[in-house]
Amino acid sequence: MAGLPQRVVITEVGLRDGLQNESATVPTADKESLARRLAGTGLPRLEVGAFVRPDLVPQMADSGELLGRIGDLSSTVELCAIAPNVRGAERAAGTDVSEVRLFLSASEGHSQSNTGRTVAEGIAAVLAAADVVRAAGKRVSVGVATAFVCPFEGNIDPRVLAGIVGQITQDGIDRIGLADTIGKAHPGQVRDALHAVRDASPEATIGLHLHDTYGTGLANAWVAMEEGVNIFDSSIGGVGGCPFAPGAAGNVATEDLVFMCHAAGVETGVDLEAVNTVAQTLPALVGHPIESRQSRLRAKAVAEDV
Amino acid sequence: MAGLPQRVVITEVGLRDGLQNESATVPTADKESLARRLAGTGLPRLEVGAFVRPDLVPQMADSGELLGRIGDLSSTVELCAIAPNVRGAERAAGTDVSEVRLFLSASEGHSQSNTGRTVAEGIAAVLAAADVVRAAGKRVSVGVATAFVCPFEGNIDPRVLAGIVGQITQDGIDRIGLADTIGKAHPGQVRDALHAVRDASPEATIGLHLHDTYGTGLANAWVAMEEGVNIFDSSIGGVGGCPFAPGAAGNVATEDLVFMCHAAGVETGVDLEAVNTVAQTLPALVGHPIESRQSRLRAKAVAEDV
Repeated sequence: MAGLPQRVVITEVGLRDGLQNESATVPTADKESLARRLAGTGLPRLEVGAFVRPDLVPQMADSGELLGRIGDLSSTVELCAIAPNVRGAERAAGTDVSEVRLFLSASEGHSQSNTGRTVAEGIAAVLAAADVVRAAGKRVSVGVATAFVCPFEGNIDPRVLAGIVGQITQDGIDRIGLADTIGKAHPGQVRDALHAVRDASPEATIGLHLHDTYGTGLANAWVAMEEGVNIFDSSIGGVGGCPFAPGAAGNVATEDLVFMCHAAGVETGVDLEAVNTVAQTLPALVGHPIESRQSRLRAKAVAEDV
Repeated sequence: MAGLPQRVVITEVGLRDGLQNESATVPTADKESLARRLAGTGLPRLEVGAFVRPDLVPQMADSGELLGRIGDLSSTVELCAIAPNVRGAERAAGTDVSEVRLFLSASEGHSQSNTGRTVAEGIAAVLAAADVVRAAGKRVSVGVATAFVCPFEGNIDPRVLAGIVGQITQDGIDRIGLADTIGKAHPGQVRDALHAVRDASPEATIGLHLHDTYGTGLANAWVAMEEGVNIFDSSIGGVGGCPFAPGAAGNVATEDLVFMCHAAGVETGVDLEAVNTVAQTLPALVGHPIESRQSRLRAKAVAEDV
């Protein structure tokens, strides 16, 4: 067996990537409650909000208020939030987050659709916003959307991806997240992309943000671990979605990722049973069943017991 | 990227492993209809029944009758059935199947629970039944249940597995299927098991029979393909289950496996759209929603359109 990391660090993104894609806006008090429950599971990092335009993403309009309520959690877990530009970065950097996560797209089509920018403009925006975040004494990371597959342009050439990452890391940003935004990457693409990005940016710390639209989420996570990646995003219950893939499933589910890691002897610091318990509170919050394998197993077991 | 097979051969096991695990027995006419639809998708092989005790597995009691009805399909697809012993092998070999699939367990606990035999008795039973099948001019394969994880004994030592496979292949049986019966294997176990089995039985043709209980089905299939495996079982819609894992999900879904193969440029000969169309007929047949990623994507898209 290829050498796996001894430990992976999971950033729970359910509060942001998950709830952002729900049609109903979850009340701030419920988000606070969920954040506190998640912080109690041993998850080391929570992405809790987005400093984006409230008219475009009303689900995230309360990110500042939420962070105001849960600042005390920053003594036990790392809190982070995303921001698309200088203005969002300023707002995020004024909160108790330890990291502001900036983002751009690897493809022109998705970049235009998601932010109305070219890829080059996206890089410039990220670099400008990074200056703001660093000036505030916070850590910067950059997520690269559509790193493997774009809903408009298909497969992304790993050399193109590596070139974009190279331009960012040249500016001293060393934490990069590669996102399978529509959950359509296969594990071979993940391997190829990791090789290309590392060849171009050997000093960068690379994490993965995977969706599980077609069931390849854990397969992609596995090959990434074989390639030495030990930083992953995931969402409790697999909540979330993608506006560019009709009916898309959400992020790879935290409980499914943790299950696989623990089965393979990879530490996460997470109490799997506790995560599953929190996941069971989600259907009431989002108004529909959740998608993780383990939540469906439990629902089925309950139904069969009746 | 590690070299993948150019083509994989999928045996569709929904009619057997899928329907065997449904609480309701599907009428023979409906099975015939499903078999004919599946044969029209380009799937090269169908496992259609089991010659087991009808009092223990009533869902499969009509396997002989079903094969009598669909014998004409054997001109376009390979038909196969499973048998646990000489008596079952005799019955199976009298039908239009091209292959009789025998089986045993790699662990004593599962062997006793599943067949009331020790592992050694299972090997002897398989070898005796193989003689019957070969005398009838049919091909033999042997499935090894709990090849990676046993519900009673936990992880299986790859050397133990390799020893069992070695005893079978010494008898001239060269087609072996390794089954993740409860869907709890992680990809590292699959790699390790494949290495051990091939070291011990280099001439054997190894296939995989994967369940997707914890979401690792495609991850396990992927690493197996990287290891050169090009023979897989899967079930349409991911139907099926396992009596030894409460609420267990079924086999890895055919449409999800085909999606990943095609995304990675691995040929299957299967029309994915046609498989998805057939999968949509399953909920009416089995009386509940099905578990494949793609069927859930479609159900969600339909719900959102309303």
